[in-house]
Amino acid sequence: MSEYLLPIEVLMEQFRKLPGVGRKTAARYALSVLDMSNEACEAFAAALMDAKTKIRRCSVCNNLTDMEICSVCADENRIGVICVVEDAKALMSIERIRDYRGRYHVLDGVLSPVKGIGPDRIGLDKLLARLENEEITEVIVATNPTIEGDATAMYITKVLTPMGIKVTRPALGIPVGGDIEYADEITLARAIKARNTME
Amino acid sequence: MSEYLLPIEVLMEQFRKLPGVGRKTAARYALSVLDMSNEACEAFAAALMDAKTKIRRCSVCNNLTDMEICSVCADENRIGVICVVEDAKALMSIERIRDYRGRYHVLDGVLSPVKGIGPDRIGLDKLLARLENEEITEVIVATNPTIEGDATAMYITKVLTPMGIKVTRPALGIPVGGDIEYADEITLARAIKARNTME
Repeated sequence: MSEYLLPIEVLMEQFRKLPGVGRKTAARYALSVLDMSNEACEAFAAALMDAKTKIRRCSVCNNLTDMEICSVCADENRIGVICVVEDAKALMSIERIRDYRGRYHVLDGVLSPVKGIGPDRIGLDKLLARLENEEITEVIVATNPTIEGDATAMYITKVLTPMGIKVTRPALGIPVGGDIEYADEITLARAIKARNTME
Repeated sequence: MSEYLLPIEVLMEQFRKLPGVGRKTAARYALSVLDMSNEACEAFAAALMDAKTKIRRCSVCNNLTDMEICSVCADENRIGVICVVEDAKALMSIERIRDYRGRYHVLDGVLSPVKGIGPDRIGLDKLLARLENEEITEVIVATNPTIEGDATAMYITKVLTPMGIKVTRPALGIPVGGDIEYADEITLARAIKARNTME
């Protein structure tokens, strides 16, 4: 059922490719584009193409970059530790805390036997290649604490531990400022199990 | 603070121009564009420009169209009544019920003395010009039941009534399937005041 004029329907289809955008939101977006000036619309289209053509993957760590090598890999003070993340968004979140001073390795997602996604599909081979060339003492596996993220962490641990590399994972527990009443049971159980002595 | 690479920030700025899109959503959209293929991104940019260039305003009623005159105005069976709406979205909502068989007049918004928006700014002159050329017996003012929408309806009534044109407004009341418990007080008061005799 084509409720709108064809060029609007076509634009709506494009907006629906964005994460979390359904038909109604896409219609709202498309109609708002019609209210823009021609120049504003051209700037929008140009920004789309610009981002797509100028942003590439870092040849070392697979992070997003507008150079050959990303700013983290280019920083010679950041050595010794690699933090493995599922995607560039996770990397950005960790950079935002301005505390971590090691490097990264951005995977192309996580292992998923159900979806048939094995180690070769998520760029783990590139991580292994790096470990031969760089002096790395620790790999922090900061994949999400989901079934697939945990499975990926387990796989990495199994491969790297025999190579003498320490593999760690960020702590799980109740979020700071969170409410124990609202913590889910699994999180709460893990938080109590991993309790710390007050000093 | 520029947290992302410049081309991503620029694209985020563009996404933020869409209604209801904040910085976080814009970032999510922009990063998802980077995951698209080049072809998909080109199609997106082309759809933006296409919609903007192909869709124009109907020269009669100001509705959106890809022709000189919109499909409603081109339909010779739709005569006698004009339904005035705030924007093309309202027109589409009314068309969706497939019940109304008159014409439309799409205003460029509503009167707002506070924002300095007078009758000349919302295209009421075009409506008046139409009333001289078309055989219109009734004008339904379907602006939203807000202060500004009501003010616009009052203004139109004041101008058209002396011209011998009947001006009406859609009924207000409890929505079908709605719950009296959750109806706001003003709506409920109006619904009771405008109560109908059961037959």
